[in-house]
Amino acid sequence: MMKGVTFLIAAATLAGFVAVTVPASLHGDEEAARVFVTTIPSGYRDWRLISVAHEEGNLHSFAAVLGNDVAIKAYREGKLPFPDGTIIAALHYGHVPSEENNKVFGQPQSFVAGAATNIQFMVKDSKKYSTTGGWGFGHFKDGKPGDDTFMKTGYPCHNQAKARDLVFTRYAP
Amino acid sequence: MMKGVTFLIAAATLAGFVAVTVPASLHGDEEAARVFVTTIPSGYRDWRLISVAHEEGNLHSFAAVLGNDVAIKAYREGKLPFPDGTIIAALHYGHVPSEENNKVFGQPQSFVAGAATNIQFMVKDSKKYSTTGGWGFGHFKDGKPGDDTFMKTGYPCHNQAKARDLVFTRYAP
Repeated sequence: MMKGVTFLIAAATLAGFVAVTVPASLHGDEEAARVFVTTIPSGYRDWRLISVAHEEGNLHSFAAVLGNDVAIKAYREGKLPFPDGTIIAALHYGHVPSEENNKVFGQPQSFVAGAATNIQFMVKDSKKYSTTGGWGFGHFKDGKPGDDTFMKTGYPCHNQAKARDLVFTRYAP
Repeated sequence: MMKGVTFLIAAATLAGFVAVTVPASLHGDEEAARVFVTTIPSGYRDWRLISVAHEEGNLHSFAAVLGNDVAIKAYREGKLPFPDGTIIAALHYGHVPSEENNKVFGQPQSFVAGAATNIQFMVKDSKKYSTTGGWGFGHFKDGKPGDDTFMKTGYPCHNQAKARDLVFTRYAP
């Protein structure tokens, strides 16, 4: 493991990246995998749209997926893997019927974003998050980071989208 | 009718607005109501998110609703009516199941934005669109303005949301 870390730091130095202080407690794979995104990236609500999504099942969620400038540029250029600095935000809301819209349409057909449920982030930093595919995962509810249960699900779930650098959402034109 | 028009022009002059040339053909209410938005506002794909929406019924549409800076500011300040210069864009896509996401979830539950179907705009200009609540409506498919059938539906439909200045979509936090 240490050899791997040494190699990564060397590579990072060659590439001219800023040095990152690795916390002393992070030695094993499992612990290292627990480097989560615990601070909400600033300004995310002003970011541009990547796409929208809806999950049924137990979620009934409505998502607006936004990206920072690095993310949008990479998407538009079709660049994979996403470069360091990429941040993708999934703003989740309830998927609720709109009574007021349905009245206008004269039938139940309209669904809108209900209350905000959570916001999830993927932050690309190939050094800091080297044990989780270069991505840090974060889950926030009411502005506070979720507990490990939520945080831990990010990587194994997204790791199933390896061909797309762990990102499910495709760019909507 | 001409009296009304005169008044509006006078008011506009007092308010210091830029003069608008009213086409000679627009004399009756019906014709005047046909001032549509026929040019796609530039840069709309970079605008910020207002909210998301989904319509069932005959539409099966997924919408991302974006606003220009004037729109976003008005929304965030809860300002009604929306000021002149507001533009709201509804980017419509098919609401399609995502096979690749469903594989990961192990069940059919995931819907994403499919092919782009149309883009609709509401442009606030209280003089230019005075006969349609101050809003101009536009419908574009493949970058081209829709025919009158589509264009004409905008105002009578949105006019049912009078309490919200003809705008259905609420701002998602």
